[in-house]
Order: sequence, then C-alpha cells, then structure tokens
Amino acid sequence: MQETNLYTVTVPAFIKTLTALSGVLDKAAGHAEGKQLEWHPKGMQEDALLTSRLISDQFPFVRQVQVACDNAKGGSARIAGIEPPAFEDNEKTIAELKARIDKTVAFLKTIKPEQVIGQEERKISLPYWKDKHMTAFGYATNYLLPNFYFHVTSAYSILRSNGVQIGKGDYIGGMPFID
Amino acid sequence: MQETNLYTVTVPAFIKTLTALSGVLDKAAGHAEGKQLEWHPKGMQEDALLTSRLISDQFPFVRQVQVACDNAKGGSARIAGIEPPAFEDNEKTIAELKARIDKTVAFLKTIKPEQVIGQEERKISLPYWKDKHMTAFGYATNYLLPNFYFHVTSAYSILRSNGVQIGKGDYIGGMPFID
Repeated sequence: MQETNLYTVTVPAFIKTLTALSGVLDKAAGHAEGKQLEWHPKGMQEDALLTSRLISDQFPFVRQVQVACDNAKGGSARIAGIEPPAFEDNEKTIAELKARIDKTVAFLKTIKPEQVIGQEERKISLPYWKDKHMTAFGYATNYLLPNFYFHVTSAYSILRSNGVQIGKGDYIGGMPFID
Repeated sequence: MQETNLYTVTVPAFIKTLTALSGVLDKAAGHAEGKQLEWHPKGMQEDALLTSRLISDQFPFVRQVQVACDNAKGGSARIAGIEPPAFEDNEKTIAELKARIDKTVAFLKTIKPEQVIGQEERKISLPYWKDKHMTAFGYATNYLLPNFYFHVTSAYSILRSNGVQIGKGDYIGGMPFID
C-alpha cells in the first residue's frame, strides 16, 4: 500500500532525482573526456562545463548542482525540525560534485519517515524571508519541490546546451513501473 | 489544517505553477514588443521566442508550454480516472499559449479532491509504455511532477537565455507566506 504523506512526497523524491543527477554527471564527465584534446590544458573541458551558464546573469552548472543538493538537504531538515550538515561550496570537479550528491543522499537517508509525517503545520522561516514564514506543507509543495526541480533541470539544461548526450530518461531516473 | 494527499500535492500545484507561467508569458510578450523594430516583419521577435530552443534537438519554447499543460491536464485526469479535453497543438502566438494555459487551469479546477484522494493504487498506463504500468502514486511523485516542472523550467530557461527579464519569483509564483 502506497501512502501519500509529507515524507513520501519529499525525501524519497529528492533521493531518486539526486541519484539520477549523479548519473547525468557521469555522462558529463564522459563528454568532457571525449572532447579533451591533447594540446588543451588538462581538465579544460570539465572546467568549461562546470562554469557554463545559460546566460551571464544565471548560476553556472556547478552552482545549480550545489543548490539542488542544498534544497533537498536543508528543505527536508527544516520540515523534520533537525539541523542539516553544512557543506562548503568548494567543488572544482565533477567527481567532487558527485561526492556532494552522495553526502546529501546519505543525509537524506538518515531522516526517518516519522520525523516528517504530520509536520504540515510546522512554521518554516528562512533568514532572507525576514519576519515571514510558511507552513511546512506550503513550503514543501509550493516552494521546495518546484525550486529543487528547477535547479536540477537547469543543471541538466546547461549540459544539454553544451552537447552532452542526455535525455529525459536521465533526468527522471528509473521509471517506477510495476508488473 | 493542511493535509497532504494525492490531490493537494498535484492539482493545486499545477494550477499555481501554470498561473505563474502565464505571468512569465506576459513578460515574454512585453520583451518581444520592446525588441520589435519598425523595419522588422511584424511579430518577428515573438515568433523567434516561440521557436527558440536551448539546442537544436530539444523542443522549442512553444512545445515546452504545450507539454507542461498536457502533463498537468492528462496526468491529473489519469489519476482521477476521467477523460481530459483534447487540445490541438496549433498555437502561433503568446496570446494563444496563454489561452491554452487558461483552458488547462479551467479543466484542472473542475477536478474535485474526492476524485483524486485515495487513488494511489490505481494502475496508470500510457500507449508508449506498451504493457507496463505504474501506480498513480508512483506516476504522480516519480514521473508526473518532475516532468511537469522540467518543462516549465525549460520554457523559462529558453526565455531567460534570450534575455527576457524574469527571475525565480516569476517561476515560483506567489510565495505561500502566512501571518
């Protein structure tokens, strides 16, 4: 029996999509390696992907991945009323970004369903909201989930616009088919 | 009291995000109008936005908006076990795309919570899945929502990469603050 609750619509969805994003990063690494010419500085293609943007005043790829991780980590922790681990924003390679995803997923797996279920009315506030706040339900469904998928899609789109061979299936991850 | 159920995490989220997307389209229309020079064919800038893509083998803006609408309309209908209205894919202007969003939102508003709540175990199948199927819960949380936000973000990103002055707030729509 599958149940819709505040845990099942957040934490497992973050884990699934971040795991898929890690696979997307593998394809980006393979793409960078394939484009690397011997007379180019080592890692030039990988650096170019990490710092690539859709337009100059939007976050580059590396930051999109960091923010997606922080949305999942911080958002889930806020709803559960626990303190999330702090990660430095210092990734310089695809392997380091994959490690950040791994750390994020490992943290998400420590959150127990009972820490999240039933927390709909918890007041959520963030420093930059000043004195305003949201309920955990409003935060999760109207802000956290759309924002998380926004940054994962933006990361994907930056790679896509650079010619990395990825498709919708890579973004979605495994399709949840049943027999 | 806010309740997390299969209705509250899908239909109202689609309505909110599509309404925000309609506002994004207004800004796109204003941008196109501002770029229109008198010696250009009328509507040239608007056409250019509608057919713009992030890369040649990805859907153009017009199709991203159509697909986002169809995800919301068809996905909600499948979960509710009802037949959605069919819309032709023939929009040629931003005003026509806004009308499609309006029709989609109007349909979503006809879906009653009790048609969706408790349908987690309903089997969902699509022609191109062949003989496979998903539960409505798996479909909604692991496919429909990520896919819907993917296409809305892609539409947004195409406009953004063309210099339309939009920000994250335009994508999210109103923040669900409480007093």
